[in-house]
Amino acid sequence: MLAEPSRHVVDPASGALSAATGSYEKRLRDLAGVYGDAAAFDAACATSGDRVVYKVEDVRPAARHGDLIFGTTFMEPGKIADEFFVTRGHVHALGNRPETYYGEAGEGLMLMESPEGEVRILKIAPRVLVYVPPFWIHRSINIGASPLVMSFCYPADSGQDYDVISKAGGMAVRVVADGDGWRDVPNPDYRPRGPDEIAALYTRQD
Amino acid sequence: MLAEPSRHVVDPASGALSAATGSYEKRLRDLAGVYGDAAAFDAACATSGDRVVYKVEDVRPAARHGDLIFGTTFMEPGKIADEFFVTRGHVHALGNRPETYYGEAGEGLMLMESPEGEVRILKIAPRVLVYVPPFWIHRSINIGASPLVMSFCYPADSGQDYDVISKAGGMAVRVVADGDGWRDVPNPDYRPRGPDEIAALYTRQD
Repeated sequence: MLAEPSRHVVDPASGALSAATGSYEKRLRDLAGVYGDAAAFDAACATSGDRVVYKVEDVRPAARHGDLIFGTTFMEPGKIADEFFVTRGHVHALGNRPETYYGEAGEGLMLMESPEGEVRILKIAPRVLVYVPPFWIHRSINIGASPLVMSFCYPADSGQDYDVISKAGGMAVRVVADGDGWRDVPNPDYRPRGPDEIAALYTRQD
Repeated sequence: MLAEPSRHVVDPASGALSAATGSYEKRLRDLAGVYGDAAAFDAACATSGDRVVYKVEDVRPAARHGDLIFGTTFMEPGKIADEFFVTRGHVHALGNRPETYYGEAGEGLMLMESPEGEVRILKIAPRVLVYVPPFWIHRSINIGASPLVMSFCYPADSGQDYDVISKAGGMAVRVVADGDGWRDVPNPDYRPRGPDEIAALYTRQD
């Protein structure tokens, strides 16, 4: 019944989390449909589809309710055409569950979108914590020239809905290179959610 | 209904958390009964009872259920007789709620005790995350010569029971200086919980 306390070391260079209980990685070819320029994506996949874009290590406790999941995300730097590498992104299946992200190395953005399509973009860097409140769809973006490493924490019963973004044709904006910096541009493929879709996202809470 | 995303910078030197929504501090005189040597505590209070031993800054969202509270703890270095400075310590009022602590600066220990009186001590330092599972009573200890700064995260509906430790005459062990290091010694004032007290701690869950 009683779980054992544990101790975990974060390596800001590799994103490794000692004594993690699970991990996964996403290679470029796993991210079909995520980027705006399909031709550039196909060309990149032809030469380096096996390339790892990001990986996650986490610790998942036995108890699903009331407990926490924590871990690290490591994102390689890179772009597809002028669009920076991104994670697939998700909203929590149990919508009223938040998430914290904490910068360990590199420079990134947390791109967030409400069910109604409001957009927020917050910069993440070492010692910066970004709070993603309940109901916000979120995706991480590496805007730097080096790996972006973050640690995260969220309630163990949150779950992830990864289809919420693809069903809307992507997120409302994309983040592209602008000289040495970045800017967000409207996503022409985006289809705002209708009232029923919005209501459904808010219904998934306890 | 929808909360606003937010961004917070941790200062590892001061423990300050930008855009915190709340804070509190504990001065030496607030910690009567916490340390083993009452005469040494009284003598220290007579000269420096106003001294801040630790302070906490946190961000508490509007929603209590399903959400997270996060923040920072700053602990001064110091001792009462040979016992290192500690936080008052607590168990979560809703017992099946955990907590994560992450080292930002300095060197410390997380002292944990199960309802049955099992003791675990894990070292915390920069880049080290300690997971305090549900039902474990926990207290932070600064064993270094400089401030101990940690960030933490726990479910927003956890609550704190601060009396659980004093009702048992303290925690089962105390941590004292041992040359340049530390060791744990039995607390002679400790009264192990009886079966009813243990059962009551496990009853407080959802």
